[in-house]
Amino acid sequence: MRATLLNCTLKPGPEESNTQALADHVVEALKSRGVTTEVFRLVDLNIKPGVEADMGEGDGWPRVHQSIRDTEILILATPTWVGHPSSLAQRALERLDAMLSETDDESRPVAYNKVAGVVVTGNEDGAHAVIASVAQGLIDIGFTVPGQAWTYWNKGPGPGPTYNESDEGHDWSQRTARAMAANLATVAEALAAHPMQAPPA
Amino acid sequence: MRATLLNCTLKPGPEESNTQALADHVVEALKSRGVTTEVFRLVDLNIKPGVEADMGEGDGWPRVHQSIRDTEILILATPTWVGHPSSLAQRALERLDAMLSETDDESRPVAYNKVAGVVVTGNEDGAHAVIASVAQGLIDIGFTVPGQAWTYWNKGPGPGPTYNESDEGHDWSQRTARAMAANLATVAEALAAHPMQAPPA
Amino acid sequence: MRATLLNCTLKPGPEESNTQALADHVVEALKSRGVTTEVFRLVDLNIKPGVEADMGEGDGWPRVHQSIRDTEILILATPTWVGHPSSLAQRALERLDAMLSETDDESRPVAYNKVAGVVVTGNEDGAHAVIASVAQGLIDIGFTVPGQAWTYWNKGPGPGPTYNESDEGHDWSQRTARAMAANLATVAEALAAHPMQAPPA
Amino acid sequence: MRATLLNCTLKPGPEESNTQALADHVVEALKSRGVTTEVFRLVDLNIKPGVEADMGEGDGWPRVHQSIRDTEILILATPTWVGHPSSLAQRALERLDAMLSETDDESRPVAYNKVAGVVVTGNEDGAHAVIASVAQGLIDIGFTVPGQAWTYWNKGPGPGPTYNESDEGHDWSQRTARAMAANLATVAEALAAHPMQAPPA
Repeated sequence: MRATLLNCTLKPGPEESNTQALADHVVEALKSRGVTTEVFRLVDLNIKPGVEADMGEGDGWPRVHQSIRDTEILILATPTWVGHPSSLAQRALERLDAMLSETDDESRPVAYNKVAGVVVTGNEDGAHAVIASVAQGLIDIGFTVPGQAWTYWNKGPGPGPTYNESDEGHDWSQRTARAMAANLATVAEALAAHPMQAPPA
Repeated sequence: MRATLLNCTLKPGPEESNTQALADHVVEALKSRGVTTEVFRLVDLNIKPGVEADMGEGDGWPRVHQSIRDTEILILATPTWVGHPSSLAQRALERLDAMLSETDDESRPVAYNKVAGVVVTGNEDGAHAVIASVAQGLIDIGFTVPGQAWTYWNKGPGPGPTYNESDEGHDWSQRTARAMAANLATVAEALAAHPMQAPPA
Repeated sequence: MRATLLNCTLKPGPEESNTQALADHVVEALKSRGVTTEVFRLVDLNIKPGVEADMGEGDGWPRVHQSIRDTEILILATPTWVGHPSSLAQRALERLDAMLSETDDESRPVAYNKVAGVVVTGNEDGAHAVIASVAQGLIDIGFTVPGQAWTYWNKGPGPGPTYNESDEGHDWSQRTARAMAANLATVAEALAAHPMQAPPA
Repeated sequence: MRATLLNCTLKPGPEESNTQALADHVVEALKSRGVTTEVFRLVDLNIKPGVEADMGEGDGWPRVHQSIRDTEILILATPTWVGHPSSLAQRALERLDAMLSETDDESRPVAYNKVAGVVVTGNEDGAHAVIASVAQGLIDIGFTVPGQAWTYWNKGPGPGPTYNESDEGHDWSQRTARAMAANLATVAEALAAHPMQAPPA
């Protein structure tokens, strides 16, 4: 079983990413279950605007798209800006939109039988809104979102330190990350054994 | 396999409910797969405000709660008011919140291994916001939301006719309702055969 | 200048309301500017489901409605449940929906030239989503939402203490409450001096 | 009085933009009130990821930023993708975030006394969610959102034609655009005559 992780931080590498720091706990917990994860830091690729799988010359999305096609688990990890998923998270959803019209040999949308989860960080309140937006988008496209397949680290009230600048609440966020990994892996296995079918006509 | 449907219309029975009219297509498609559905019209019960499973004398929620405990599939069907799930849909989520701390014999939150979907109607735009809110709430509590486990009938731009006053787009909404039923039933079966486990410590 | 405050807590009086505790800082700051505030604790009234200004016998809304008609400032104060405004906040928005079709002598929707703000509390993340939902609803109906006309006290990550159980971040939330009161009062005065007109045909 | 319009379409010029087509009705109505509007099509500029006013070499944002600093009215016009504001709309909000810490000579956040509105188009449902997200973001930053300062053209149920491919509902969307322009201009004038002050300490 394989996973693809999209890190939607606005900060180019190799700058430290708070979002990656929390997402790493999901990756590690997946690894302990034998799931290998391919990580993409979208800001370092050239993900062009558009809603097609390939937006032409220089577009960095096609290999991300291929990775998602090849794996059973998608993790979208994003910081919170102005209370929302980052512009790169929304960019990813726009590009994933092309999957609505891609089907497999059995006429199933290609996202069927894939599961997805959400990792959120932020130096202020907003995780629930981010999870709502991202989960709705992924469910629209055909991904299944298992119960409690998310974790977050957002503090409040008001602006404050980032994940890497504070120890507060790390235990909770990391324990929740481990539950997220377990739920993603188990539901992915369940769907592999008992798959969703093409939508009825 | 059984389902519970919460109709969150604001209109008391026996007035015709647009939301029920669309939800009936999900119920019928489930029936053709051998799934029986228990329907609750929440406005006709006395669902008290609060976040406990039983809010005391006269509270109409406990038997709804029991139905959800006993079934594998939850369908929340709601009209759209001011772009949001109805106050009765939010009331249902508040009461479902009590399930966060209920666990089964194997220490699993009781919503684990249950699936949930959303039916939305409205005389104006808003379905995506309603699906986002409701799905996020149900995933929080532990329900799994299968890919494309929703249908909606909301027209735009601006206020217009209701579902029962218009034929426009019924085909799409009803075909989507059948896909929703298929996805709910299949993922519920998958989880029954290959269940989620208690969250790791 | 007068204000109406809707406290949308789920807890009946006289139980202590965290939401009221924070909202009191807005009320006090308004008072220091000569604005008197009428407070309604909606859970203690019988606010019937529906989208009309008066839902008939026993309905507690009509006098709330009258208060809002008579004042220049509306404050919706709500706890956060499952990441959303409470069912009573949504109930209030549904009942306010009737104002869309009420106009004054100059054919203006009655909410024009009224300002509105939002107070949020919660024992977990969610304030931004609550502010987004409530502000959008109020703007739809015709209220003007001044810049930074909100305050909140929501902690994260994960569930934690309530406002009244913790001192953390009170300074920020209360200072923000005072800014909210100033912005509401100033913009209400600006609109009184220079009012919005009826929408062009 | 001047306005800045951010067109957040994903389509590069000179391709026809549905969002611009509807936004033009707001621009025209503003013009008839003597308001001139500067239009930016963000996809054609190089708006770098980040949350500072200037993200360095090649960044296209600084002159957009300057335009917004110089005008009294901001219009964010966006298509709907996966039910959300476009990635370019979110990018704009992220870059506007820098204004939180910019103050004028009287210690006021620079967005104070500016008004903002939202134009939404889409080939499917989603306008209310887009308006909620964008309005909340702009209010956070200090912009005032006047009552009914939005218009939209989103059809449903399900995917359908774009604004430029259909005549349905144009009247409603354009009449609402004229009301939006009137409300933006009037409230901007009100705030110019009776300005918001620096937040109390």
